[in-house]
Amino acid sequence: MLLLRRCHSLTRFGHLNTQRHQVAPAVASCAVRLWSSSSEDQRWYQRAHRPSWRHALAGLLAGTGAVLVYGLHHHKAEQEDTITVQTLEKTSALPIFSQEEVTSHRSLEDGVWVTYKGGVYDITEFVAMHPGGDKILLAAGGALEPFWALYAVHNQEHVLEMLSEYKVGELRAEDLKKQQAVQTLDPYSSDPERHPVLRVNNLKPFNAEPPPEILSDSFITPSAIFFKRNHLPVPRVDPASYQLHVEGLPGVLTLSLEDLKTRFPKHTVTATLQCAGNRRSEMNQVKQVKGLNWGIAAISNATWGGARLRDVLLAAGYGPEVAQRAFHVQFEGLDKDITGTTYGASIPLNKAVSEEGDVLLAYEMNGEDLPADHGYPVRVVVPGTVGARNVKWLGKIIVSAEESSSHWQQNDYKGFSPGTDWDTVDFKSAPAIQELPIQSAITTPADGAVVNRSLEEVTVKGYAWSGGGREVVRVDVSMDGGKTWQVAQLRSSEKGQAPEPSPPPGRAWAWKLWELTAPLPPEAQELEIVCKAVDNSYNMQPDTVPPIWNLRGVLSNAWHRVKVNIRED
Amino acid sequence: MLLLRRCHSLTRFGHLNTQRHQVAPAVASCAVRLWSSSSEDQRWYQRAHRPSWRHALAGLLAGTGAVLVYGLHHHKAEQEDTITVQTLEKTSALPIFSQEEVTSHRSLEDGVWVTYKGGVYDITEFVAMHPGGDKILLAAGGALEPFWALYAVHNQEHVLEMLSEYKVGELRAEDLKKQQAVQTLDPYSSDPERHPVLRVNNLKPFNAEPPPEILSDSFITPSAIFFKRNHLPVPRVDPASYQLHVEGLPGVLTLSLEDLKTRFPKHTVTATLQCAGNRRSEMNQVKQVKGLNWGIAAISNATWGGARLRDVLLAAGYGPEVAQRAFHVQFEGLDKDITGTTYGASIPLNKAVSEEGDVLLAYEMNGEDLPADHGYPVRVVVPGTVGARNVKWLGKIIVSAEESSSHWQQNDYKGFSPGTDWDTVDFKSAPAIQELPIQSAITTPADGAVVNRSLEEVTVKGYAWSGGGREVVRVDVSMDGGKTWQVAQLRSSEKGQAPEPSPPPGRAWAWKLWELTAPLPPEAQELEIVCKAVDNSYNMQPDTVPPIWNLRGVLSNAWHRVKVNIRED
Repeated sequence: MLLLRRCHSLTRFGHLNTQRHQVAPAVASCAVRLWSSSSEDQRWYQRAHRPSWRHALAGLLAGTGAVLVYGLHHHKAEQEDTITVQTLEKTSALPIFSQEEVTSHRSLEDGVWVTYKGGVYDITEFVAMHPGGDKILLAAGGALEPFWALYAVHNQEHVLEMLSEYKVGELRAEDLKKQQAVQTLDPYSSDPERHPVLRVNNLKPFNAEPPPEILSDSFITPSAIFFKRNHLPVPRVDPASYQLHVEGLPGVLTLSLEDLKTRFPKHTVTATLQCAGNRRSEMNQVKQVKGLNWGIAAISNATWGGARLRDVLLAAGYGPEVAQRAFHVQFEGLDKDITGTTYGASIPLNKAVSEEGDVLLAYEMNGEDLPADHGYPVRVVVPGTVGARNVKWLGKIIVSAEESSSHWQQNDYKGFSPGTDWDTVDFKSAPAIQELPIQSAITTPADGAVVNRSLEEVTVKGYAWSGGGREVVRVDVSMDGGKTWQVAQLRSSEKGQAPEPSPPPGRAWAWKLWELTAPLPPEAQELEIVCKAVDNSYNMQPDTVPPIWNLRGVLSNAWHRVKVNIRED
Repeated sequence: MLLLRRCHSLTRFGHLNTQRHQVAPAVASCAVRLWSSSSEDQRWYQRAHRPSWRHALAGLLAGTGAVLVYGLHHHKAEQEDTITVQTLEKTSALPIFSQEEVTSHRSLEDGVWVTYKGGVYDITEFVAMHPGGDKILLAAGGALEPFWALYAVHNQEHVLEMLSEYKVGELRAEDLKKQQAVQTLDPYSSDPERHPVLRVNNLKPFNAEPPPEILSDSFITPSAIFFKRNHLPVPRVDPASYQLHVEGLPGVLTLSLEDLKTRFPKHTVTATLQCAGNRRSEMNQVKQVKGLNWGIAAISNATWGGARLRDVLLAAGYGPEVAQRAFHVQFEGLDKDITGTTYGASIPLNKAVSEEGDVLLAYEMNGEDLPADHGYPVRVVVPGTVGARNVKWLGKIIVSAEESSSHWQQNDYKGFSPGTDWDTVDFKSAPAIQELPIQSAITTPADGAVVNRSLEEVTVKGYAWSGGGREVVRVDVSMDGGKTWQVAQLRSSEKGQAPEPSPPPGRAWAWKLWELTAPLPPEAQELEIVCKAVDNSYNMQPDTVPPIWNLRGVLSNAWHRVKVNIRED
């Protein structure tokens, strides 16, 4: 269908005959590449086997003007910005357009025109094919550069090849100069420095995980290597002028950072956060999914300090009469996209107000101020709940009858049947992920590791965690691919320290690390080591990946398997 | 080891030479049968691959006297009591003992003697081999009949064969007459009538499930076919004199049935109850487990009416200071074994006192008084929690620092690794089952059903439920053994009625029924239909049974599979 539509658009742009001839082979190959190779995780700005047609045409034109004044220092040398642009070279036969003419084309009715590096492109026909859906209309009538700077997925040669098909002219030289003058800032230029040990899955926005063998060294993950999952540029917030707005309650409350620290008792909670996409790479091995190719380390454990959300809601007048009409607590971050849309999510109200829910408005991580990547100065920590609801750089809390209307609550971070594809998916049919299911993985040995026969035994280590405060009560480890099982030793404190007492029921927020030393089977040349965990609701991990595969690659919690070779000395 | 010990005992009883010769082949075969064929579910009175030696020798002699006055009408003709007793025929060469002599042997030091139908048996050597553990000592010095009447597992020929090995004499005729005079009542004689459609897994105590295809006909299971799982005889309770004692709180409370109905608001909750052993038969197919061979219908759904446990605890003075010292709420039933030990269990205090826990002291089931089999006049209903904690014929509530010390809380109804056997099991290492994991099963078509090709399609039906108030959000059905999946239609009300609104988060106590109609694949001669459910914590069922197999056969929640043959017309 995609290729058919593209043939149609090629026919329409008759004046591009020579160029079309030149790019046709590239078109065919890029169409395949566009929907089959993935390494990014960007809302609708992602590749997929098929785009989500049902969402593509809904109008979303507001905010386009903001794009035009959004600064972008496009020429700054960046790792992901070194793509050959030969296909965009000027074709002198094309007409010259003014910015005013371009700006007059910003709807499907009037045509959708955009500019890129001085070229003018009529992308009307492409709108319905855009993998990122209707958000493409935000750029209508203006420059693509600010968007592409935000969503680095576009910085690939085949995207430029596709764009070149739609070229209809050149931007007037003086308008191009004006554009370049305002494109002076990289929205990610104020992102903080990161630890070099992190494995970067995406640079802009920053998404990275620690090496697994380091992850399981510490019960409390050092903040520097705690996995980082940003959806947008890191906002730089001035703590002195920071304000947290609380809405939807009898008293409208605005709190400074100082208020939050002094007006409410400080609570600390040790809680594990996990990205919904942790272990997505294993789903990608079954069949390509949309999303960042996370390994097994998009999960970490920290001690968080802050005010209880419950206390803040009570201070703003929360009471039984609110519970009659409100069912959710929405959070808005201070991280914004070009249009001013902030990151947002919500959690059920009963989790937020429960004494046993332990939801924090955290200003400390591991005893220090929150790092910039983790939400400085204030983030929500919702223990037992998927990372995506633990909104960072918290700007606003809204108690409401409805869930957050954000993209991430409504049309992302949901699970579907393996039989559901992008043609058939109905995001309304599945609940937003909140509590996560039982999970475990082997952090050492690594897949493909070699063990010397003379060592006679192998030590297997890993982590296990379950959402909803359900305590991990057992981890089974198999050395023979799942035929026979041994019980691993669990640990819920730093090595050598006394074990923590068992948490109250339903409040086991922290992971457990585990370890098993087993003799090498005398005959085996290869071990298939497998782990699976059990929580205190006796939920267990599914055996295999294909039956839980889903188009977004979330909730990947099948048994974890690594193969190890035994080397004869 | 078992056979070695038995050889030892045969050697010791030199005067039984002729008899030993006669029964030796039977001994060998019954030893195999004893540990390999199972159809009962009786605490320690169960067969196993190996008995639990660690528990066998702990002394438990109290209450033996009570046994002797416990009446039993042993000669009453009963379905399970028609076993050939030829191996117990009198051997005239054996000495005659008085009851007094028998009674003097009731410890391991003095020897453990018992009588059965006028024979005297020295079972000292057998104590350590008793699959039911140390409870056998309760019968020391007295008659076996009252115990065996309570635990019908003993009414099998090979048990009598084993007993015959230990015969040492005959009971004096006048003492035998005295015994028979007091054995006038079957403890199960007052059990209620049951619906004939039930599939009886065990008659005494009564354990039965409805046929699966009937189960899924109704969203609310009619009380008469609601699965029944009794651990002891059904007590007949006079509602006029019924008293419920509440202990462990500042105010000690004793409530009549009238008090419970009038002093506290009546709440109704529709909640599914499931036995921990539901679908145990699938584990038995992998490897023999201890326990009743339940099919897929040890689960049912009813509307319960009663006082909230929370309200009763508050009336007895529950408050924050109690929460500082107490963590559990224990329940004692009025159903008793011969020694006066009542059925008992406990749940976490936070579940009991939570406004959202919906724990009821129920006196109604489906709009009527509780039936005798379901706990008349009062039972606990703990929504989302394993059936075993929903104590029937409730006599006492104890708020306490510790869990119930009952056998069923401490040494039963726990899950273990598939690698754990009766030699290595440590019951302290696993938590008592409370919330149950995600579950689903296919109620129709039945395994082995035949479908005519001309019908062109097949309709698959079933149920799905998860513990802890987690709502079932999806059921996937495969017609090809799990390769491809379709999403079934869920139903949470009676057929044709408007769907119930979604329950608040964490309070989805009722199951969902589901249905899928799919075309018959043109080429297939056999379908392997599979179902798996997902709850709103996105927990999923494990793929296969062997990796979740456990020695008690509980928590059997792998994908459910049925094979259907397609007949060409």
